[in-house]
Amino acid sequence: MFPFKSNRHYVRFSTRAQIFYGLLDGGEIDTLAGNLFDIPRAVGQTHLLSDVKLLSPCEPRKIMAVGRNYQSHLKGRKALETPEIFYKPITALQNPGDPIVLPRDSRNAHFEGELVIVIGQTVSKASKSEAAAAIFGVTCGNDISERDWQNGNEAEGIAKDLQWWRAKGSDTFAPLGPAIVTGLDYGNLRLQTRVNGQTLQDQTTADLIFDLPSVVSWISQWVTLTPGDVIYTGTPGNTRALQAGDEVEVEIEGIGILRNPVVAE
Amino acid sequence: MFPFKSNRHYVRFSTRAQIFYGLLDGGEIDTLAGNLFDIPRAVGQTHLLSDVKLLSPCEPRKIMAVGRNYQSHLKGRKALETPEIFYKPITALQNPGDPIVLPRDSRNAHFEGELVIVIGQTVSKASKSEAAAAIFGVTCGNDISERDWQNGNEAEGIAKDLQWWRAKGSDTFAPLGPAIVTGLDYGNLRLQTRVNGQTLQDQTTADLIFDLPSVVSWISQWVTLTPGDVIYTGTPGNTRALQAGDEVEVEIEGIGILRNPVVAE
Repeated sequence: MFPFKSNRHYVRFSTRAQIFYGLLDGGEIDTLAGNLFDIPRAVGQTHLLSDVKLLSPCEPRKIMAVGRNYQSHLKGRKALETPEIFYKPITALQNPGDPIVLPRDSRNAHFEGELVIVIGQTVSKASKSEAAAAIFGVTCGNDISERDWQNGNEAEGIAKDLQWWRAKGSDTFAPLGPAIVTGLDYGNLRLQTRVNGQTLQDQTTADLIFDLPSVVSWISQWVTLTPGDVIYTGTPGNTRALQAGDEVEVEIEGIGILRNPVVAE
Repeated sequence: MFPFKSNRHYVRFSTRAQIFYGLLDGGEIDTLAGNLFDIPRAVGQTHLLSDVKLLSPCEPRKIMAVGRNYQSHLKGRKALETPEIFYKPITALQNPGDPIVLPRDSRNAHFEGELVIVIGQTVSKASKSEAAAAIFGVTCGNDISERDWQNGNEAEGIAKDLQWWRAKGSDTFAPLGPAIVTGLDYGNLRLQTRVNGQTLQDQTTADLIFDLPSVVSWISQWVTLTPGDVIYTGTPGNTRALQAGDEVEVEIEGIGILRNPVVAE
């Protein structure tokens, strides 16, 4: 288990040319030295949140995601017996506040507000309790998904891609943040997604079909997870296409708001 | 273009506890300092190849792969109009000589001998000529693929996974090496795969449906590639299931032999 299990809000931020990890407390950040996933050490330097730029809160070596993990997102499809997993490339990461860029030829890129697991220690072939202990904390994510590339679009004569590499993996398709939070009851958090202030997703993570330890345990049977790796846990309810000029917010109780504008390439 | 376009064989190796990049010449390695993808610098220290352990020859931040890129592997399926891409996670990398581990519940894990692109510079939305200039060199890869997880197996009552995450991404499913070689005519190299000495794939990369610059250019329209990223370019002809005790060799003209034993978990 990790040393700090009360609610701590870890962020990554830049001040002019330098990048740091830090511990967010209200409007102030305590700068940390060392690796966030070993024993982070306060260096006695604070910054006002308003003075810095928040970055995606960790630097994963690998991004994974779960498909169809809320009953409300199944739309008549059969519930899965085991989690269905896919990858997003790390080049898709986007900072809080930075734009989701719609690729030139994209017509149907949807938001997907999601709770995201941040892995704290190397984990392979883990039981559910070992998996639970390997979870460092959670953050908000937006699993941007180009539906025409993911599923095809018969009316438009677009065949689906063999795999979801660009549907889920185009640059900026993985907004993440604003903070990694420890000490929450991950299984009972309210998740809301808003576009231009209108709430379009509103559900609790209690409705996840596969809970966080089950997802981590399942993946780890085949694929080793390493510190900083992140897992998007699936989106609830309905989604719709984003347009240039939109602003998307993913808010999760106890974590904060991940806000990104949408722009055209 | 990279400074050295004559045939140079770059390796990564360990001597006791330390890891280095090096330039292989016959049986001797010239140790390099600095980042392989900037200007590597010889430090005047040589090692005998026989004294060191070769590692996968670079540390990619991202592994991508092309499906169905040889006419001979299509088996009646229609040729693709554009490359079909998927991801392998970096935790799947395996060193030359180290084992391909068949997961406990795997019954149908196939070899796939492939020419692998190594990217040398950050590249986004590249033309074919820009893409060609971003290729640092090539190496051998084995894109291990669990067919039951990839395609399902009706006779065995196994449903295919939604995406190929463990079919292509289980630990050790991405052997890579032994060296990154520059200065070759990538479009005309003989590729052979042998299992226990028997040749099962034997084709030239001239038969690739999408050549290397086309693949890099296509990917870069949506997903930025960064130095050290690798792209498995597809496998020719037929493949078959591996068994514990097998030894697989992927040999590519001008590069060398990537040899891995196969073991059960």
